[in-house]
Amino acid sequence: MSSATPTEMACVEIKSPGGPEQLVLTRRPVPQPGPADVLIRVHAAGINRPDIVQRLGQYPPPPGASDLPGLEIAGEVVALGPGVTSIKRGDLVCALVPGGGYAEYATADAGSCLPIPQDLDTVAAAALPETVFTVWHNVFQRGALQPGESLLVHGGSSGIGTTAIQLAKARGSYVAATAGSDAKCEACRELGADLTVNYRAQDFVDAVRALPGKGVDVILDMVGGSYLPRNIKCLKPDGRLVVIAFLEGNKGELDLAPLMLKRLTVTGSTLRARDTAFKAALARAVYENVWPLIAAKKFTPRIEQVFPLAQAADAHRLMESSAHIGKIVLKLL
Amino acid sequence: MSSATPTEMACVEIKSPGGPEQLVLTRRPVPQPGPADVLIRVHAAGINRPDIVQRLGQYPPPPGASDLPGLEIAGEVVALGPGVTSIKRGDLVCALVPGGGYAEYATADAGSCLPIPQDLDTVAAAALPETVFTVWHNVFQRGALQPGESLLVHGGSSGIGTTAIQLAKARGSYVAATAGSDAKCEACRELGADLTVNYRAQDFVDAVRALPGKGVDVILDMVGGSYLPRNIKCLKPDGRLVVIAFLEGNKGELDLAPLMLKRLTVTGSTLRARDTAFKAALARAVYENVWPLIAAKKFTPRIEQVFPLAQAADAHRLMESSAHIGKIVLKLL
Repeated sequence: MSSATPTEMACVEIKSPGGPEQLVLTRRPVPQPGPADVLIRVHAAGINRPDIVQRLGQYPPPPGASDLPGLEIAGEVVALGPGVTSIKRGDLVCALVPGGGYAEYATADAGSCLPIPQDLDTVAAAALPETVFTVWHNVFQRGALQPGESLLVHGGSSGIGTTAIQLAKARGSYVAATAGSDAKCEACRELGADLTVNYRAQDFVDAVRALPGKGVDVILDMVGGSYLPRNIKCLKPDGRLVVIAFLEGNKGELDLAPLMLKRLTVTGSTLRARDTAFKAALARAVYENVWPLIAAKKFTPRIEQVFPLAQAADAHRLMESSAHIGKIVLKLL
Repeated sequence: MSSATPTEMACVEIKSPGGPEQLVLTRRPVPQPGPADVLIRVHAAGINRPDIVQRLGQYPPPPGASDLPGLEIAGEVVALGPGVTSIKRGDLVCALVPGGGYAEYATADAGSCLPIPQDLDTVAAAALPETVFTVWHNVFQRGALQPGESLLVHGGSSGIGTTAIQLAKARGSYVAATAGSDAKCEACRELGADLTVNYRAQDFVDAVRALPGKGVDVILDMVGGSYLPRNIKCLKPDGRLVVIAFLEGNKGELDLAPLMLKRLTVTGSTLRARDTAFKAALARAVYENVWPLIAAKKFTPRIEQVFPLAQAADAHRLMESSAHIGKIVLKLL
């Protein structure tokens, strides 16, 4: 480890399961990188909805991961595990981490690190990994969205939503998005959505089934519950529903008749528990497919607000209010 | 059309929606082959459960198909549409048809015809197309069962079940099957099943989760309803559930939490409504992959009973009794 690296750091821990007030600034030892890890001086860390679920005590960190919240970071590499050859000290990277992001220092598997894209600062770069890895895997790999096909994104104004809209549009798909206000719908259209539905004012099933193809090819859902049967109605033949969260509940009714008749696929995934080999392969796919779109200005992470580390609780409050559009980021340096 | 072909034929029609007694022997004009069709003198026709659903009025034939029941036939080609070059008069073929099988003559798209395998008579050959096409597509294409992976087949003693057990076993998979009696379970084991569960005596979820892998990779289901949540419990990570019928009902509860955490895929299909190009491609895949297993005696269609055409109603009664193991076939010649 670099001699300039201190032994202690500031970080935010979850004191006990509960509300945003449970996020408490404290001090911990700086973590030691494992053989395949790098140690990153965190400049910025993205906030994600799973952080809130973890804070509530409903999403424990996977074995071996830090108990500190935070799934994505950007910063400077300050130390290397003995097995790391792909990255050197001083590199500016953004990284997907299984926890520990709300801290001045965090370790990351070298395979989960990507260079910070040109023209992006560390705040914007910290908003990328969790969101882009999730969207790339679920929309383009698992959902196999093809150019010319159509995508429906629920939560279009969320970090995931604003990313999915831009990436799908940049790759030549028709994009429909739902959001909870006219202002959010307007933001989705600015990002490229062809059709937006304010779900508080209009039934998205009616709107999507009124499309020329009478539905869409792929749906990215984070609502679950009652959205499951409604999503099934929105899919065209050979359509794919990919579930990445269930804000409304994990149980839903599935009608097997349209599943068979339209040859639908219902699937889903979580990213955090995947092994480092999977994440490294996904990082390479993201680097090859998404980084060029960032360079070409076809995709820019939309940032709603930036908070200092000590105000992580306020950052959570904003996310829980759902008043934001795009990403919320902690800036440490 | 051959000068030897009569203009009228015996056939069994569905007089009106209802019980087996609605299957009535009658006479109809011999059908004319379309440009890409062949006319087949039917020697034998397989009975399938969709025939029963059609008889009940709940599975109308797709547009353009015969209203007569019968989805698979074997016999001699007696006439060719002008566009047919792959088959000649006098060829013995078995064929997947979208209807019209319960008749002395039936038309079939040339692409849906396959040569009758050596060493099989026309009764055994007539038992192949619907079942083998369905199993090949749903277990090996849609479900992507790989050698070394494990399969759970519900209805293991059905035509579909006895086929799926043999094909999966021949291709190097571990096979579990459910059936409704100890005798049926014994038959499944004779066909190669490694584990059988008499679902009237034992919870299949317990039995499957007791396996070394704590589940299976692929499930072929035709029960639906309450089996949906139970099937989800039986799947290993990255497992696939393929639904091809819903004898118990089309609505089921899907738990999105294990769907995401285990990265499951739930899908399904029907064969009858697919276009001729799809069926022709599937026929080629079946010819390349399944016909060699028949030649090697690793797969033999299991026939329960053979009825004359005039006793189609009795054939349906037997299928509805679920007392059979394997296929039920009408023999016309």
